[in-house]
Amino acid sequence: MEECIFCRIAQKKIPCKMIYETDNAMAFLDINPGSSGHTLVIPKKHYDTIDIMPEDEVIDLFKVAIKVMKAVDKVIKPDGINLFQNNKLAAGQIVNHTHIHIFPRFRGDKIDFRWGRVPLDNEDMDRIAELIRGGLE
Amino acid sequence: MEECIFCRIAQKKIPCKMIYETDNAMAFLDINPGSSGHTLVIPKKHYDTIDIMPEDEVIDLFKVAIKVMKAVDKVIKPDGINLFQNNKLAAGQIVNHTHIHIFPRFRGDKIDFRWGRVPLDNEDMDRIAELIRGGLE
Repeated sequence: MEECIFCRIAQKKIPCKMIYETDNAMAFLDINPGSSGHTLVIPKKHYDTIDIMPEDEVIDLFKVAIKVMKAVDKVIKPDGINLFQNNKLAAGQIVNHTHIHIFPRFRGDKIDFRWGRVPLDNEDMDRIAELIRGGLE
Repeated sequence: MEECIFCRIAQKKIPCKMIYETDNAMAFLDINPGSSGHTLVIPKKHYDTIDIMPEDEVIDLFKVAIKVMKAVDKVIKPDGINLFQNNKLAAGQIVNHTHIHIFPRFRGDKIDFRWGRVPLDNEDMDRIAELIRGGLE
């Protein structure tokens, strides 16, 4: 993972606009911000996606995300905030080191995170719900 | 909050395609799915946005989200998964009861959650980072 840019940021080998850090996680400004105050929260250890992280580190990650989100809300005063976390390229993940986006939103910002409804009827939904329940561990 | 649809679902006053529940949180299929397996995770108590939730309930919420996300990944086998959580209308929040989307993604699904880069130079970024650090509590 020598070449992972977020690992190098976590190891302080390259600089960032640091917001906050704990033993396990850190928050810094996105270098390609979609809005003013756009911040990333990462685990210091490398995990490609969030589902492979140990639970205690996931909890730390979201604690930091909520703490920083509150600060962003207080000082940037956006009209709304998205928290999102993309896993794998098909979901828009570019850097393969788990990260949470804290994304301040402003009325009229022309960003559109909506989606269309896929055609699933009641029986499809029952079948899918049963399938997912069966996959719980 | 009598009329809140997610409160009514949490109180079992209206049905849902239940996936999983704990004392504090529950997961059920989105009734308007953007993809197969699109699931919502909510706190059973009403909180408009995530920043006003007590920390222990936030932790429960994300524990449930990660647990269900793993099940979705295992049985639906998408090419990626977005976790996102919208706060306030400007961020796309339609139901004013905190919820996390577990959104399976598929290559070629034509959903586009990207954004443009806003023009902020290095000095802007330093100023914003300092501002947010000053807002941490």
